[in-house]
Amino acid sequence: MSKGYVLREYRNLEEVLLDKDLAGLGDAYVNFLYSLVVSQRSGHPKSAKVNNRILAEAVRKAGLRKLLPRRIDRHALGNAAEALIVFAWLDDTVTFEDSLGILGEKDNGVEAFTALLREILERLDKRDEQG
Amino acid sequence: MSKGYVLREYRNLEEVLLDKDLAGLGDAYVNFLYSLVVSQRSGHPKSAKVNNRILAEAVRKAGLRKLLPRRIDRHALGNAAEALIVFAWLDDTVTFEDSLGILGEKDNGVEAFTALLREILERLDKRDEQG
Repeated sequence: MSKGYVLREYRNLEEVLLDKDLAGLGDAYVNFLYSLVVSQRSGHPKSAKVNNRILAEAVRKAGLRKLLPRRIDRHALGNAAEALIVFAWLDDTVTFEDSLGILGEKDNGVEAFTALLREILERLDKRDEQG
Repeated sequence: MSKGYVLREYRNLEEVLLDKDLAGLGDAYVNFLYSLVVSQRSGHPKSAKVNNRILAEAVRKAGLRKLLPRRIDRHALGNAAEALIVFAWLDDTVTFEDSLGILGEKDNGVEAFTALLREILERLDKRDEQG
């Protein structure tokens, strides 16, 4: 079964960012992904929770803020990042290994997630141009 | 970077089962894996936490209880399952896709995780025989 099968049809990026169900799955995905980044950095297994402040800041830095409703709290900004990150994986836009590599390049959490979100946006743009 | 790099050398299975750091990473892995199983079953993204009662029961049913100290609580039994499941993935004994398939075959959580633990044990046995 293809993993993309769990995705519904989205008319635009905003719908992806605001899908709470997707953010729920994304939360589990991002925590696992980031735990593995931290594990690889330290050389032994570790678990790490990514907090909403980091994800919210990365959403702003990646230029996604303008796609979201004006009145939105930090939690919803964090959800938007989680939704987009797992969307890109489910959709085969960015592999797990690629995401791991991109996050692993930066020591700073905000910078790491900003880089990942930017890479996802670039690839989605390219795909739309080709398609 | 190989993902197995985060594993230390274990002398035996008991050491794997009792590694709390590994269980921490395993918790994130198992929650993500199971969230995806539940998402695929329902046809839309969902997050699902696997509770310790289910994992503890699966540890017993898979015959792992005898490898663990006599006095051990349910939480530590759950940890043992999480540690072994992520060990098998890090070690390339069972792929993510295989794990997803095995868990997806059973509706019942205890049966699903029992099947996964048994499969891991069988493959580890085979590998040891070959090696």
